[in-house]
Amino acid sequence: MERVYNFAAGPAALPEAVLKRAKNEMMNYQGSGQSVMEMSHRSSVFQNIMEETESLLRELMQIPDNYKILFLQGGGSTQFSMIPLNLKRNGTADYILTGQWAKKAAKEAEKFLKVRIATSSQDDDFRSVPDLSEIQFSKDADYVYLCQNNTIYGTHYTDVQIPDIEKIPFIADISSCILGEPVNVSKYGAVFAGAQKNMGPAGVTVVIIREDLVREPDEPIPAMLTYKNHADKGSMYNTPPCYAIYMVKLVLEWLKNDIGGLDNMYSYNQKKAAMLYECLDRSRLFHGRAKKAARSLMNVVFSSGNQELDMKFVQEAAYAGLINLKGHRSIGGVRASLYNAVTLEAVEALTAFIENFEKNMRN
Amino acid sequence: MERVYNFAAGPAALPEAVLKRAKNEMMNYQGSGQSVMEMSHRSSVFQNIMEETESLLRELMQIPDNYKILFLQGGGSTQFSMIPLNLKRNGTADYILTGQWAKKAAKEAEKFLKVRIATSSQDDDFRSVPDLSEIQFSKDADYVYLCQNNTIYGTHYTDVQIPDIEKIPFIADISSCILGEPVNVSKYGAVFAGAQKNMGPAGVTVVIIREDLVREPDEPIPAMLTYKNHADKGSMYNTPPCYAIYMVKLVLEWLKNDIGGLDNMYSYNQKKAAMLYECLDRSRLFHGRAKKAARSLMNVVFSSGNQELDMKFVQEAAYAGLINLKGHRSIGGVRASLYNAVTLEAVEALTAFIENFEKNMRN
Repeated sequence: MERVYNFAAGPAALPEAVLKRAKNEMMNYQGSGQSVMEMSHRSSVFQNIMEETESLLRELMQIPDNYKILFLQGGGSTQFSMIPLNLKRNGTADYILTGQWAKKAAKEAEKFLKVRIATSSQDDDFRSVPDLSEIQFSKDADYVYLCQNNTIYGTHYTDVQIPDIEKIPFIADISSCILGEPVNVSKYGAVFAGAQKNMGPAGVTVVIIREDLVREPDEPIPAMLTYKNHADKGSMYNTPPCYAIYMVKLVLEWLKNDIGGLDNMYSYNQKKAAMLYECLDRSRLFHGRAKKAARSLMNVVFSSGNQELDMKFVQEAAYAGLINLKGHRSIGGVRASLYNAVTLEAVEALTAFIENFEKNMRN
Repeated sequence: MERVYNFAAGPAALPEAVLKRAKNEMMNYQGSGQSVMEMSHRSSVFQNIMEETESLLRELMQIPDNYKILFLQGGGSTQFSMIPLNLKRNGTADYILTGQWAKKAAKEAEKFLKVRIATSSQDDDFRSVPDLSEIQFSKDADYVYLCQNNTIYGTHYTDVQIPDIEKIPFIADISSCILGEPVNVSKYGAVFAGAQKNMGPAGVTVVIIREDLVREPDEPIPAMLTYKNHADKGSMYNTPPCYAIYMVKLVLEWLKNDIGGLDNMYSYNQKKAAMLYECLDRSRLFHGRAKKAARSLMNVVFSSGNQELDMKFVQEAAYAGLINLKGHRSIGGVRASLYNAVTLEAVEALTAFIENFEKNMRN
């Protein structure tokens, strides 16, 4: 089989140019005589990779100087613990529930502090995201937590929907929207993202955190779950996931040089998403799950309302080389993730497939 | 520069055949149309990779059926917390101090339980490992901890030096000896190893743990630091470091098919280490750091006793294509790590270089 159109929710498609470069550099990275996988993490050649990756990310996302960039392990699920463990002061935090990942984060935080659910779109079956402009957050909250893009339900907040609140930092899971659209980091105390959607392979998690939040925790917590340890050592407190970081570097170079930066990427993603949503809005067979105002740019969730038919669609699409379209096991249906590396050509192939499938159904 | 001889302590050399295969499969893994980095971790093609990796490791190390094999993130340093957090029952543990990594592990454990230093070779400057046959371990210890191979000081325990103690499980850090020599897993409650020495790239940590030790912890601990969560989900509690696991699979396949199994690998490693130690024993310039009875098969630490001369040696060796010979920053000197992927040819080149360097010094 030739290379497929991959609509996976993460790990997900990577730019072909990036994979080709990784392939070419596999045996000997830039004349160093070694694969990146073989390099001592203390060697200057790897230190350069680390610095370039950080500096590219800072440039592309316009991350202010008073934010640390950390390259960690353990995915978003590890952040669900690290956030309460490190940010706990008064012992209370507000959580905004917009889907399963935010619920998981809240449940984990309950082990370590008092969690208050500030608002939730559960009554709406997570088809929308709650309006945050009128919410009263707890005055003594150590932070307010939200998940900016909900991979499972296909909904999301844009930056402008995040209110400016004095003194209480917003902490956002941006795993499935980082680098797909602009995120104004200065609105947040910290944001984090697993790499395996828009940045690289699974195995590295980026945490961008305001310096004043990087402090010695009040109680003893695991060393590897302490932001300060990683920040003090430039993400070299122990051996980092070197190859995954290198892959992030290649993706960032592609985003800067081949795409021309985040604004261009955002326009391209808007075009892709619009194409698919318009196709669904025209369709008499499929309908999008999320309410229009909350539609995600990255994860398009839809269904025919008939589980068997959805499965048939997913299977036939896979035979045609459009893979990983199955919805999350918790809600079923169809999900097309349109991350940065998913091309317009792939989305065109998908919309054509949808239209054809629908036509065949009618005949 | 052609490919170098790489004596790094980890991340370290990988077999050239493994890198070539990774290169060839980069764009399209076995006709799947995707790179392994792009695969959904829930897809059957990746599930197969996971199962094959586990089954190869079980076969090569002869791991009994009542041990779980976990593929985790965060390196040995995360295990330093996970062990006390998960195994704490009575609240006491015995630690055997044979070097910096064991000390770090003990220091971390002190956050969570009462640590007793059962024995230490610190008085000997960690040139030896303490005899364990006469040690009285605490009767109520939840476990006894040791580091089987000391990467920094170049010392190690063989399996036969580990006494059989009733009821108290031994927990061993085998990061730098796993798959380099036989380890009788059934002597331990659990062993763990970062992959980046003998198994693959940095970013995945293997934990092999007896089933009865995989229990719900008594107190709430971070979900990602709970062995039971990972064991219950077959290391898929969250997105695993897929590509690093795939690389481990390739290394295990090489070990089985190209080398012919662990016994062959062990013989080869003995031959390599003997060649270098004999060279050092003949040398009038360099001397090995570890006492002979405790010499590591994997990490050969030596010095001329003159820091400047050691540095000169390391630098000249690097120019000649023998890289990463610098000793750990805490003790200086020279260190040659002879992990599985370091060839006999590389060790021959190193001994020739040592002899030549010494000859030039005399002239």
